[in-house]
Amino acid sequence: MKVAVLGFGTVGVGVYEMLAKAPGFEQGPVLVRKGKEDQPFKVSSMEAICADPSVGAVAEVMGGVEPANTYVAMALRAGKHVVTSNKALVAAKGIELAAIAREHGVSFLFSAACGGAVPFLHNLSIAALSDTIEALGGILNGTTNFMLDAMQTEGKDYGDVLRQAQALGYAEADPTADVSGLDALRKIMLACAVAYDKLPVDGFAREGIESITAADVTDFQSRGLTCRLVTSGGEAGESVYAYVEPVLFPAGAPECSVQKNFNMAKYRGENAGSIVLMGQGAGRYPTASAVVRDLYGIGGVPMMTERCREVIADNASCVHPYYVRVAAKDKALFAFAECREDGENLRGVTEPMAVPVMHAVAEGIRKEGGSIFFAAME
Amino acid sequence: MKVAVLGFGTVGVGVYEMLAKAPGFEQGPVLVRKGKEDQPFKVSSMEAICADPSVGAVAEVMGGVEPANTYVAMALRAGKHVVTSNKALVAAKGIELAAIAREHGVSFLFSAACGGAVPFLHNLSIAALSDTIEALGGILNGTTNFMLDAMQTEGKDYGDVLRQAQALGYAEADPTADVSGLDALRKIMLACAVAYDKLPVDGFAREGIESITAADVTDFQSRGLTCRLVTSGGEAGESVYAYVEPVLFPAGAPECSVQKNFNMAKYRGENAGSIVLMGQGAGRYPTASAVVRDLYGIGGVPMMTERCREVIADNASCVHPYYVRVAAKDKALFAFAECREDGENLRGVTEPMAVPVMHAVAEGIRKEGGSIFFAAME
Repeated sequence: MKVAVLGFGTVGVGVYEMLAKAPGFEQGPVLVRKGKEDQPFKVSSMEAICADPSVGAVAEVMGGVEPANTYVAMALRAGKHVVTSNKALVAAKGIELAAIAREHGVSFLFSAACGGAVPFLHNLSIAALSDTIEALGGILNGTTNFMLDAMQTEGKDYGDVLRQAQALGYAEADPTADVSGLDALRKIMLACAVAYDKLPVDGFAREGIESITAADVTDFQSRGLTCRLVTSGGEAGESVYAYVEPVLFPAGAPECSVQKNFNMAKYRGENAGSIVLMGQGAGRYPTASAVVRDLYGIGGVPMMTERCREVIADNASCVHPYYVRVAAKDKALFAFAECREDGENLRGVTEPMAVPVMHAVAEGIRKEGGSIFFAAME
Repeated sequence: MKVAVLGFGTVGVGVYEMLAKAPGFEQGPVLVRKGKEDQPFKVSSMEAICADPSVGAVAEVMGGVEPANTYVAMALRAGKHVVTSNKALVAAKGIELAAIAREHGVSFLFSAACGGAVPFLHNLSIAALSDTIEALGGILNGTTNFMLDAMQTEGKDYGDVLRQAQALGYAEADPTADVSGLDALRKIMLACAVAYDKLPVDGFAREGIESITAADVTDFQSRGLTCRLVTSGGEAGESVYAYVEPVLFPAGAPECSVQKNFNMAKYRGENAGSIVLMGQGAGRYPTASAVVRDLYGIGGVPMMTERCREVIADNASCVHPYYVRVAAKDKALFAFAECREDGENLRGVTEPMAVPVMHAVAEGIRKEGGSIFFAAME
């Protein structure tokens, strides 16, 4: 089966190369922008790809919602299977695209959109069929993990590690989607859709790593704790919970061993127990390998079923203590189980708090021009 | 599709229960020994199962080579797909059984035979199609991991933790297969067959955990190291390397976070990079969940291809330093990079040594009635 590749950037080149060595598949045409057809295998017409009967599947690795959405819908309607690494696309249009795929009897798979090389969504889709997924999530953003790891192992400050991540190509010129937790949130949206047939589209709690300082790191390291940006999801009645926030882990937790730009995805099945998957979360060949692996899932278990529907996330039942650094004057906003003054700041650990309450209090402090760092205590 | 279950022990009961909730599959007859048909769904005739056209697949969870081999061959010849958790069977008869499966156009899958709930062989079989697997292995025996973890976290001696493991049902009355590394070795045999189309049947190096003492633990813990029983495999020219031995890891290695009776399987793909999978290595529902997940792989990527052949393992190219505790009189047998006397013993770290050399030297010492503990330095 020939596989057309949409996009010839970092991942697209990797997919095209890997297709040359993937038994059962062949390199098909590569869609590029008009005027960029500088090699015979490059084409600029999606219509031509759809009309080519030798193309059995399409690998969409352009990124962004449009024109990827239009092209993927065209391919599915032309009876081509689609695999994609595009989390923004699946988060925004996944339910519609999966419906088109079902209507035309083809597969629509997107393992590479969550966790890079980590085979998370593929395994989750199979596990969810016969097991009850009690919780899921993990470290799903490699850029922020690289930055947190560098701050904690090298004692650097936030600005330094961000520049380092940019220099290495891990962070973009505008790093907002990564450092704000938005990228990780999109991934948990997909995981909830796969595990629960519920795609959360609003009601999230999201805290990134933009508030962390070298002084914060020094303090929680003195308590033996390691910080990771963690995404959490699970069923909550008719809805799901879905939130992103920094979490502090004690030494020996598997999360502490996730270094550099690696990802760690996990789920807990009622029968399987806790399943943890680690690997590179981004990069040409790691991501391409996930795209190509999904080709071998064509015709198998679908990732987004006809039961999948949009829901508003509900995090009210998620409760845990938080490590908090705030101005001393904001002490009364929290019920501290323990705290101590540190110059003008207070640092401490709260009594258990509901996730939406913690995030709302932090938002309030920032609206008043105040500063806060918080992280859940594992 | 109805699924017949062969065996109604720990795993069999779990599989039978899970089938009631697995979309696309139904509970079929359960094969038990003659005279044990105390419920209507239990039968004692494998012929009857093979003749039942409503049975589309068979889950073999009896364990042992015979009669499992005869029954699985009968099922495959009757056109039933087979999934199995039986590592002894696949290690001994897998190539033959896979050939029968191909001849009859059915699937023969055995994820549950290696890693329990950890979805290792399933993902490895897909990855191996389009990626070059550079190395594989990990912590594949939960019993010995439980024992090593207890020795290191609770300071107990070998005999105590073995009795504890037996009391908890993790170790059998005769624990030899686990503590000698044989169980882990069978698992790496299967992984090599899946990844390389080469099933190693001899030429192994195998060191279990029977020689470790509380004093050994105290010493390497003072060096900041943690011991795990690790299985390693990879290609070695026309053959593969495949060996089992204790390994010492520095703090922060993912292996250190594998606690109690958990397993950690890993592979490194040329494209995917390092992929690490953790989960429960044994137990009713974890193992049953792997058996049921394989049912959803029916018709997909085969685990043992027509290219798979038996090879003699070749570990000569595997070289690393070893931590060694021996009698002071045996010092000259090793090139120590550093060592110190500890009563009548010497403890030290050798210069890099080939795996077969280290294992042969240890065998020689024991033949002379001497004592040695050794572990590879990660």
